[in-house]
Formats: sequence, C-alpha cells, structure tokens
Amino acid sequence: MKISYANRGMDLESEINDTNHYYLDIDKAVVYKKPTPITISKVNYKENRINEGYFRTPSTTDYNGLYKGYYIDFEAKETVNKTSFPLQNIHPHQIEHLKKVVKHGGIGFLIIRFKTINETYYLDANELIKFIKDNTAKSIPIDYFRANGHIIKDKFQPRVDYLSIVDLYIGVKNEKKI
Amino acid sequence: MKISYANRGMDLESEINDTNHYYLDIDKAVVYKKPTPITISKVNYKENRINEGYFRTPSTTDYNGLYKGYYIDFEAKETVNKTSFPLQNIHPHQIEHLKKVVKHGGIGFLIIRFKTINETYYLDANELIKFIKDNTAKSIPIDYFRANGHIIKDKFQPRVDYLSIVDLYIGVKNEKKI
Repeated sequence: MKISYANRGMDLESEINDTNHYYLDIDKAVVYKKPTPITISKVNYKENRINEGYFRTPSTTDYNGLYKGYYIDFEAKETVNKTSFPLQNIHPHQIEHLKKVVKHGGIGFLIIRFKTINETYYLDANELIKFIKDNTAKSIPIDYFRANGHIIKDKFQPRVDYLSIVDLYIGVKNEKKI
Repeated sequence: MKISYANRGMDLESEINDTNHYYLDIDKAVVYKKPTPITISKVNYKENRINEGYFRTPSTTDYNGLYKGYYIDFEAKETVNKTSFPLQNIHPHQIEHLKKVVKHGGIGFLIIRFKTINETYYLDANELIKFIKDNTAKSIPIDYFRANGHIIKDKFQPRVDYLSIVDLYIGVKNEKKI
C-alpha cells in the first residue's frame, strides 16, 4: 500500500500560499495572492466591520510578484477532470490579462492541478494563448500540458516549487537578450 | 481669479485608478490597485453576499504591476499637512515590502500628495529607505521630497503621470547594466 504524504488534504491555493510564504522567508521572491475583489455596500468604520458586501469578478489573475527582477503573474486552478482542463475555469478577463503580461515583458503562466490523478502542471501563458488561437475546444487536454507544459513535482518544502520552472523561462529570456 | 480644473475634487486614489485605466487603454502598462484585504466571517454563497467581514492590515502596498518589462510597486497617500508627510501613514509592513521590492530588482516608490498646497511627489523607495535609516523623525519634510523626489505635475490625461518619472529610473537601471 502506497501512502502519499505529499498532499495531506491541502488544496492548491493553500499550498501555493505556503510556497509563497516560504519564498518570502528565504528571501527568494516576493509573490502574493491578491485579496478577493469585493464591493462593500454597508460598513461600520468605527468597528472596522463590513455588514454587507458582494464578490466581484476579478479582472486579473490571483497571483503576482517579483522574482530575479522579473514580473511574474499567474492563475492557479484545480480540476477533478482526469483528461482535460475546462477553460471555463479561467475568466476571459484573466486570459486577456495574461496576454498583456506577456506583451509587456512579464512572465505569465497557469498552475493547473489534476486532483484525481495528483498531477500539477505549469503552462506558460504563451502556450495557453497558442492553444486558444489554434483550437476551438473548450478544454485543454492533459496531453497538451504534458507536451507543452512542465510537471511541478510535489515537494515537502516548498510545496509547489513553481519558481524552478520559471527559472527555465528566465534562461530563455536571457538567451534572447544576448 | 485662477480656477484650477486639474483637480475637480477627486481624491488621489481615484486619480491613480483613472491613470492606471488610461495606461491600460493605451497599452502602456499593466498596473492595478490591489483589492482591500478582508477577512470574511459570514457569507451567503448562494446570493454571492458577504454578511460579515473585517478589514485586515495590508502586508504589501496598494498598487503593483508591469511596465516595460519591469515590476513596479507603490503606495499612494494624501496628507493635509503642508510641511511634512507623517510616516505613520505608511504601515511598517509596507516599508519592509518596498525594501524587498528594491532588493529583488523591482521599482518601488511612494506617491505623496500634499493636498492643501496641491503638490504631488514621487519618492523612490531607495530615498525613503535612506531617510528612515538616517533620521529618527516621524515625518518626512516636504523639502526632502523637493530635494530627493520628483514633482508629478497635474495633467488632464493621465491625471497622475507617474510613469514619466519611472522612465527616469529605468534609464538609470539600464545605464548600470551597461
């Protein structure tokens, strides 16, 4: 019997938050999850309390920050699907945002976890954009992640070591500069 | 009688939000204000409504984004003081955050508006850090902004053209690289 200790019931968001805390602690990168956008309609400032508010659709991705002088920006999602990632999980705004990130010289990507089979992939924004341009499919097949993305292996610390993949893209960027 | 049309009662935050929208529209930069961090304690997911929440102390600055391949990060504040900017308006967390931004190769700064005299300054994070290191004063005198910062002139569009100052710092960064 194989027991996996790598994923003790934590969801991807918590694991990425832990990872970002770890990167901050060891002074490797400065990456934060953005707070959930909310419209506040009733507030008691004296007691610092919100009495009514509504969730807004985000115009950007959930995470951004700074690593080795580069702007990085990404969205992270889990799916229970085993064979593909449904694109409806990403807002059109967020895809437009990632296009802008790439255009202005940042590093944009998705972190997608296929929960059921416990595989987590890094997909560069350029590969996402290419897929959407070349396909009408509403889901990205897992084989596309396997062929054009990078698997992020479970680790004890940091949990989701996505910067090890970002390093590959920084290498490519620097080669282009030379 | 001199009538100022430059500042039609808008506060600095609204003017910077307008500026960021403008930069996005003309595809010059991708900068957003982060949503206010909130702890949600009671929520009705069906109706998408928050019934109770509390404001949290922010761990970072309010604004960050991407410009010409650079990570930029800043905090904006208004003061009614005429002669100095009280440092208590900036959380210690935010100063620590700006230090990290500088260390990791980003461009960090403050935008400070002296409302009463309608002067808005850009102060680079390095100058802020130097002031705190060299002084025990709890306020930064306006003369320090005049000597070590840059005035941001009122414009019709964009309202607070801070990227024109960021350009100066990008110039210095590129010279250092050469």
